[in-house]
Amino acid sequence: MAISPATEKNRQLRLQARPKGLLAPGDLQLAESPVPELKDGQALARVKYLSIDPTMRVWMVVDSYLPAVAIGEVMRAIGFAEIVESRHPDYKKGDRVTGLTGLQDYVIIDKSAKHFFQKVPKIPFVSDTVFLGVLGTNGLTAFFGMEIAAPKKAETLVVSAAAGATGSIVGQIGKIHGCRVVGIAGSDDKCAWITRDLGFDAAVNYKHADWKEKLAAATPNGIDIDFENVGGEIMQEVLNRMNLHGRVVLCGLISGYTKEEASMASLGTILVKRLRVQGFIILDYASRFMEAAKQLGQWKMFGKLKDRETIVEGLEKAPEAINMLFTGGNIGKLIVKV
Amino acid sequence: MAISPATEKNRQLRLQARPKGLLAPGDLQLAESPVPELKDGQALARVKYLSIDPTMRVWMVVDSYLPAVAIGEVMRAIGFAEIVESRHPDYKKGDRVTGLTGLQDYVIIDKSAKHFFQKVPKIPFVSDTVFLGVLGTNGLTAFFGMEIAAPKKAETLVVSAAAGATGSIVGQIGKIHGCRVVGIAGSDDKCAWITRDLGFDAAVNYKHADWKEKLAAATPNGIDIDFENVGGEIMQEVLNRMNLHGRVVLCGLISGYTKEEASMASLGTILVKRLRVQGFIILDYASRFMEAAKQLGQWKMFGKLKDRETIVEGLEKAPEAINMLFTGGNIGKLIVKV
Repeated sequence: MAISPATEKNRQLRLQARPKGLLAPGDLQLAESPVPELKDGQALARVKYLSIDPTMRVWMVVDSYLPAVAIGEVMRAIGFAEIVESRHPDYKKGDRVTGLTGLQDYVIIDKSAKHFFQKVPKIPFVSDTVFLGVLGTNGLTAFFGMEIAAPKKAETLVVSAAAGATGSIVGQIGKIHGCRVVGIAGSDDKCAWITRDLGFDAAVNYKHADWKEKLAAATPNGIDIDFENVGGEIMQEVLNRMNLHGRVVLCGLISGYTKEEASMASLGTILVKRLRVQGFIILDYASRFMEAAKQLGQWKMFGKLKDRETIVEGLEKAPEAINMLFTGGNIGKLIVKV
Repeated sequence: MAISPATEKNRQLRLQARPKGLLAPGDLQLAESPVPELKDGQALARVKYLSIDPTMRVWMVVDSYLPAVAIGEVMRAIGFAEIVESRHPDYKKGDRVTGLTGLQDYVIIDKSAKHFFQKVPKIPFVSDTVFLGVLGTNGLTAFFGMEIAAPKKAETLVVSAAAGATGSIVGQIGKIHGCRVVGIAGSDDKCAWITRDLGFDAAVNYKHADWKEKLAAATPNGIDIDFENVGGEIMQEVLNRMNLHGRVVLCGLISGYTKEEASMASLGTILVKRLRVQGFIILDYASRFMEAAKQLGQWKMFGKLKDRETIVEGLEKAPEAINMLFTGGNIGKLIVKV
């Protein structure tokens, strides 16, 4: 249990090349360096779990809402870590944190704001990884995205990447608000999970040839809210079925992250249907994270938010795990256990 | 002055073929029919002026926010007309109305809601055509579109088709709200008009090769509001210069109306900049037209809304006039005098 930094190495996955399409071997390269010496005002944390998110693929190639990761730098990632040594006034050994740990074994926490670390409690019967999922970025994204959507009872909500970490929570929040919830996902297993276990009203597997007919059948009253995680052809078909004055929460465009061409939408559809399309990045809501986490925690405690994890063992497997997001390999939250 | 329906013909422009690209000769065909006999509950109005609007090109080819005009029907158009004979309880001879007169000399007004007729007053020193422009659809569109935009003092507003009937009013409302207003238009004359006469802070002629640099120079603090009338490449460049949390009022897509391919926008730009894109059709605001017209009338009276008209003489010239919208031939409000 006791970790002795002095005798350990810090393994790091560093960005060596910007991927084209899926990650190729060598785009992220494993390197070892000594575990850093602590200075006054710093704490050392051992990374235990890493959150594997589609947005990481964006960080690898272009400046977006955050600058692209520089070549040679440790790959940016959100992780869960435990303080093993501290000369920082705010942290003591055993404290548990989440933040931008990066893909590595150890991370130094200092006063730099750009790591976004925050302490998380130990909750009985709750796994540590919940702070990367339901009570982490995915839960917060679903919560504030649905606040933008402003769902009304009996409206129809469609969410894409519905068996993903964010989409699965979005749909359940939709049910809490009394919506008819339809999920779009890429396998029959995923569809079965969100309807049988999570209470979605219907699910559509977009890999079936007749998925557009299935979507139409599942949304007999049209679509009022599109919680969009995917973009591309799937999004356009959802737009085609939207009702006048519908709302689109534009949260992700995963179908385009491994492609050269930009994901586009027909402006004519948006205009004629008087849709409101709102781009959305969770960082804008940082000042309200505690408020949201409290509500999410209550829902989770009362069984209204179920989750599921796909856990990949070993830091060195992180590049393969990232690719799983784009090949549809995971159900629910994808995590690397370091 | 007295018009005797019995001895007159009713000339009508009927839709004979759905245009591809610009209107070709024969897409609208001139026909003559007798001036209709009045029944109880009807009034007969002589059309004096016709509003020539880009949306007419949409009505000619596809179902949109209104159904496409059927082949063989009188082409739909907004017009200004005067009652010449009435057996309708709400109208008397000499009353003046605006509504969907269609491209013809005479129109029957009955209780059908789909004509959208409303009476307009005679205002000293004000031309009749103002009810098709500043106090008509264009003024109302600018007014409610700017309500959606919710401009704040010192924000930068960019409006495309800025020397058009709607764009020119949008920019002036932007100035009333204290915005920095930049117009995009397609000729140096148009740019001169909106800056010298209308008070826009800057204008960019998109037909100059260096227009993107000019737009950048004219928007040193980025763009907070895009009042979008054009779509296509011009819109994408405006999006590229938008600030975080900017608002796009999607009012028209004129660059695409004569093309086969749909006007598209990059979803990545909308997402990363957290833009809000709101599709907008003025018909949704019908219950508030009087309120808006009152405000627009006050602004006009106090010299805060200047306008300009391009008047084409003769009903038979309406097809050419419609094409002028897409070849950039008009400045300000385009009207056919019947």
